[in-house]
Amino acid sequence: MSEIVTAAMVVIGDEILSGRTKDRNIGHLADIMTAVGIDLKEVRIVPDEQEAIVEAINALRSRFTYVFTTGGIGPTHDDITADAVAAAFGLPCEYDDRAYRLLDEHYEARGIEFTEARKRMARMPRGARHIPNPISVAPGFAIDNVFVMAGVPAIFQAMLDQIVPTLRTGAKLLSVSIPSPLPEGTIGGPLGEVQKAFPETIIGSYPKYVDGRFWTELVIRSRSEETLQAAKAEIERMLDRLLQQS
Amino acid sequence: MSEIVTAAMVVIGDEILSGRTKDRNIGHLADIMTAVGIDLKEVRIVPDEQEAIVEAINALRSRFTYVFTTGGIGPTHDDITADAVAAAFGLPCEYDDRAYRLLDEHYEARGIEFTEARKRMARMPRGARHIPNPISVAPGFAIDNVFVMAGVPAIFQAMLDQIVPTLRTGAKLLSVSIPSPLPEGTIGGPLGEVQKAFPETIIGSYPKYVDGRFWTELVIRSRSEETLQAAKAEIERMLDRLLQQS
Repeated sequence: MSEIVTAAMVVIGDEILSGRTKDRNIGHLADIMTAVGIDLKEVRIVPDEQEAIVEAINALRSRFTYVFTTGGIGPTHDDITADAVAAAFGLPCEYDDRAYRLLDEHYEARGIEFTEARKRMARMPRGARHIPNPISVAPGFAIDNVFVMAGVPAIFQAMLDQIVPTLRTGAKLLSVSIPSPLPEGTIGGPLGEVQKAFPETIIGSYPKYVDGRFWTELVIRSRSEETLQAAKAEIERMLDRLLQQS
Repeated sequence: MSEIVTAAMVVIGDEILSGRTKDRNIGHLADIMTAVGIDLKEVRIVPDEQEAIVEAINALRSRFTYVFTTGGIGPTHDDITADAVAAAFGLPCEYDDRAYRLLDEHYEARGIEFTEARKRMARMPRGARHIPNPISVAPGFAIDNVFVMAGVPAIFQAMLDQIVPTLRTGAKLLSVSIPSPLPEGTIGGPLGEVQKAFPETIIGSYPKYVDGRFWTELVIRSRSEETLQAAKAEIERMLDRLLQQS
């Protein structure tokens, strides 16, 4: 019997809250977590302000197995995630020798100046583990159960690929989708009865509004294939019955 | 001198956290808030669980001018937002007479049964104000500074359009974007100096990674056009200087 493994995400960046940048990382993390059997339970989007970042990380890291952050680890003055994560853990934020050497060699080899700004990307909380960055070298880092990654989607995805194999994962939440031509208002009552009869499943009902017509996607989730199929059969019988009545 | 008006958002729904549905409401709200001069300061995505919804709403409603929620106001058993918002305010959640009549008439006129499930959509915290729903009738509602809206994007957007003219709005945060061919590592140091010289602006630096190349979008935000233009001129001088050196 596998344990339940949970996660939360903190998206850091004024540009998401202003609408200038549309986040593409939340949906990606959600997909990956679902695929490996980790329950993503909460996401917070916070501005580039240390107090807001510290509060979000400390609220979530004690409550969930893992916390993933995106954004704010670049070289500019508004990249304050490393300092904020260090503050959340009460640790000093300092140049990491290995990250410093990696970046120094990387820029040296390309004839690019290793500016003070670039050196900022070698800063992390004391004792942090690296998360390799196969795209632009500057590593993300992990401290305890908090994984700090880039906001640029290509780099975030590459970093996440590095760490996913190292995570504990739970029993995969299986799901099956049943399209219903009947709207939620018709199926809502009987569907609630099915949910009661199968308390170990999570039955979701998602109204779709396409071309002026409503239909409903019903999704059953369960960690047991057998339970999933039993609930699916029950919902299909329910839909048949309602369709005959209508 | 206009006041600062702030907002937070609570996105309610397991389907967003599982990745099955990709949220499209956060970016829309962010755009609208920026357009009318309200600062969106935090977004939380929470599951269809009363405790999580209550906690998010109570944490945010005391801290920001407005809280907007999306999701969980349909007719099925997993639509628990009305109950959760009522619980957050310590109010009873009950059938609203006017909403009940609206829905009853709507379904009557269409020869559709007003099922128990559909009646659920008339429930709201006692004393709530309606948010009209021009698409599918079932209203959203507002209680104090919390605005509860649908998760279906077309309906959410229509509801938001109804309430935006009723909101207090602040001085619009103006912004200007300056594309920089130089990467963040080169401009980071001097850019930090410009930020220090213009403390009343917010200068953001957004790395872009396209076709294997990095460039940087610099965004200056200010409530004063004069300050904005002064900071822009200073950054353009900085970029010219750095480009001549490189």
